[in-house]
Amino acid sequence: MKKVLLFLFGTTLFLFAQAQAIDSAFIKMIADNILVSRASYNNLYTLTKKIGGRLAGSPQMVMAENWGYKALQDAGADNVTLQQCMVPHWVRGGKDNAAVTYKNADGKIQTMQLNVLALGNSMGSGAKGVEAPLLRVKNFDELEKRKDEIKGKIVFYSVPFEETFIETFRAYGKNVMYRGIGASRAAKYGAVAMLVRSMTHAMDNNPHTGALRYDDDLPKIPAAAVGLRDVEKLDTLLDNNIALTAQLFTYGKMLPDTIGHNVIGELKGTEFPDEIITVGGHLDSWDVNEGAHDDGAGVVQTIEVLRAFKALGFQPKHTIRFVLFANEENATNGGKKYADEAKEKKEKHIFALESDAGGFTPHGFSFDVKPETWPKLEAWKSLFTPYGGSAFSKGGGGADISYLSEAFKTPLAELIPDTQRYFDVHHAVTDVFEAVNIRELKLGAINMAALLYLVDKYGL
Amino acid sequence: MKKVLLFLFGTTLFLFAQAQAIDSAFIKMIADNILVSRASYNNLYTLTKKIGGRLAGSPQMVMAENWGYKALQDAGADNVTLQQCMVPHWVRGGKDNAAVTYKNADGKIQTMQLNVLALGNSMGSGAKGVEAPLLRVKNFDELEKRKDEIKGKIVFYSVPFEETFIETFRAYGKNVMYRGIGASRAAKYGAVAMLVRSMTHAMDNNPHTGALRYDDDLPKIPAAAVGLRDVEKLDTLLDNNIALTAQLFTYGKMLPDTIGHNVIGELKGTEFPDEIITVGGHLDSWDVNEGAHDDGAGVVQTIEVLRAFKALGFQPKHTIRFVLFANEENATNGGKKYADEAKEKKEKHIFALESDAGGFTPHGFSFDVKPETWPKLEAWKSLFTPYGGSAFSKGGGGADISYLSEAFKTPLAELIPDTQRYFDVHHAVTDVFEAVNIRELKLGAINMAALLYLVDKYGL
Repeated sequence: MKKVLLFLFGTTLFLFAQAQAIDSAFIKMIADNILVSRASYNNLYTLTKKIGGRLAGSPQMVMAENWGYKALQDAGADNVTLQQCMVPHWVRGGKDNAAVTYKNADGKIQTMQLNVLALGNSMGSGAKGVEAPLLRVKNFDELEKRKDEIKGKIVFYSVPFEETFIETFRAYGKNVMYRGIGASRAAKYGAVAMLVRSMTHAMDNNPHTGALRYDDDLPKIPAAAVGLRDVEKLDTLLDNNIALTAQLFTYGKMLPDTIGHNVIGELKGTEFPDEIITVGGHLDSWDVNEGAHDDGAGVVQTIEVLRAFKALGFQPKHTIRFVLFANEENATNGGKKYADEAKEKKEKHIFALESDAGGFTPHGFSFDVKPETWPKLEAWKSLFTPYGGSAFSKGGGGADISYLSEAFKTPLAELIPDTQRYFDVHHAVTDVFEAVNIRELKLGAINMAALLYLVDKYGL
Repeated sequence: MKKVLLFLFGTTLFLFAQAQAIDSAFIKMIADNILVSRASYNNLYTLTKKIGGRLAGSPQMVMAENWGYKALQDAGADNVTLQQCMVPHWVRGGKDNAAVTYKNADGKIQTMQLNVLALGNSMGSGAKGVEAPLLRVKNFDELEKRKDEIKGKIVFYSVPFEETFIETFRAYGKNVMYRGIGASRAAKYGAVAMLVRSMTHAMDNNPHTGALRYDDDLPKIPAAAVGLRDVEKLDTLLDNNIALTAQLFTYGKMLPDTIGHNVIGELKGTEFPDEIITVGGHLDSWDVNEGAHDDGAGVVQTIEVLRAFKALGFQPKHTIRFVLFANEENATNGGKKYADEAKEKKEKHIFALESDAGGFTPHGFSFDVKPETWPKLEAWKSLFTPYGGSAFSKGGGGADISYLSEAFKTPLAELIPDTQRYFDVHHAVTDVFEAVNIRELKLGAINMAALLYLVDKYGL
């Protein structure tokens, strides 16, 4: 009996080792294929340089959808569909502008221009602008304490981006609420406009836009992000108790909702065609840049995984959907629509993977899975080690696919790349093609392909 | 007895845990200090933007030495010295230029300009240039097979930089011999000049210079590196059996050896002042760029470690020397001199650490240590995990400190950062301040400081 058990144990180990060797060899084939191909470079170039910024509702977004449709076809999808959804249609409407005036030591009036970008979804001041004393707060607590001083002022959230966090998304997570709800929090006490320190620790002076969400019961005041070097100058003046009057000119407006599309390419499953694995990034970007890291990288990686699978003749057991989501930046209507339609059609979604943290050297994945799934993931780790993606952590799966979890409790994962450079370019004019190193982006695609291959083969 | 042993074991574990907690807390203090300081940013800015390219023997290198002396003083060194050494004095001498001519399908003569840079230490063609048929070889084997065809030709080493290696230094290691000794190998069979594919997989067309070593017994023929897009065009023409005639104009010359200096800052050891730990990078760079990653990063990190140690009031038990080496690029006379003088003075060198692989996000260290040292290193790993530097591998310690190993069998380590972007900029015009992300550079300095702290405290 003991011998039989030992034999079985030995056989199991042997089979496991053999399976790992096969998996390792296939992942190496994926890696080699992706590393020597120029497809991802060319795709990113076209999306960023030929189409450029592509906010939901913009003509560029329509171009991007058409391009994405063709790119998924060219990569070898069995079929490509456009999934219609309604998206917000915010336009910047003009050149954002701001300045402060103050009296210098000689009593002379000084004017200092500020490098600003109106926040996405914000209502502009229009050409008449808004002018008022600037009131700085360092956090919401201070806002609450000074609520009686706020009426008629422009509130300036000067909240430093934490530099001592090693992972920069922690700093973003800590501060982004000031961008998101700071305007309405200030409007509640009568503020006439809001400025916020850009969500970055970049050494340049570029402002970083991003979405806000107004409270519909409060006045929708103009709101803009300020570049960091200008923030430093403002802080110096305010630290010296110099009274500042700010002028802000923004032109944003919300047009009626319009039609957008998720672009979906499919590889039909050979054994379980009705069980769906989703992988994707978002096709939309802010208007002020080329959306190269955010999220051209995720889009191109998604297409690249498909291209490599087809190039290697890989046929998944489950259906894999390669999804370019319609509208992550100033709503998540693409992701919502994708999950809503899946619910309506009673689809079965077994796994979803998102890439929306930039095309940087991958470190691993964050997983939103049941605790009992972890031993399986642990056993896969060594397969990712050669490609840098073996740091597996517990966390969310990304904004667009989060609705699948809500709908189906689908296990989720998100690619986690190196985060040091992300907030240098995030939502700023600097998020352009040249900021992406194509090998770093490819390494992300390799790790994504490996994870999809393993989940398709062994389940999750 | 058993109880006593258990007690001792328990006490040891407790003390170990307590020591790790203290070390972890101190390393966190180092990290916080470095992450919020602007010193490294300002230092890199001055070195790259105010001084710029600084090849050994150049006026810029003298400026860099003076700057380094002051920077080490400002960072708090107990003393700073200039250690004189003789260095080669190569000058580019003019604007490198090349072209090929060929007959197109209609029999018309076409000319194609090539983006080239003369290799460091190479002898120029002068203004008369050199013109000859271009003979392409893909490796030294082919050169040997075709040795009878080479006389009077310009040999073109079109050796692709391997794209499927994940670590890019492997590709460099495989190909760099063509740059290093390719000219003399070709001259042996009568070649009149040599062109080599740049050591890069960059998508741009910038040529990448770097040192060659002539065989003194053979003619010193002109030699230059070609940008990759031009290499592709040449390959396409040659693949179509189109005969190419190449013209090359370079102006390099070797002036008499001149005086350079290692710049050495010291923190005196409190307990073992005669036992020396060395940390350094090289101050010299190529002439065509700002030497930002190569090796401004290593220089600035070295100074930053000193600054942070002093800022935290850390007094090492052993003497730590912060060394800015004089001449890594086209000889390693700075490193040689440092070890030679150490031998003369019968110094005791217990450890040396080098940073010369770019200021990118750190992955870990490569160690050249005795096998019995590994358990100690393994026990330290978790202290590096929060800062990304826990990948410890066996390997060399860097070019400049390698002479310490030869002289004293000193244990060595080299900082290993992410390598994906390095050869995009290495020895090309693109190695400039803007290519460095200052947080990535700082993370390298943090890991270096942590390793020095641990080696000083526990030995190696």
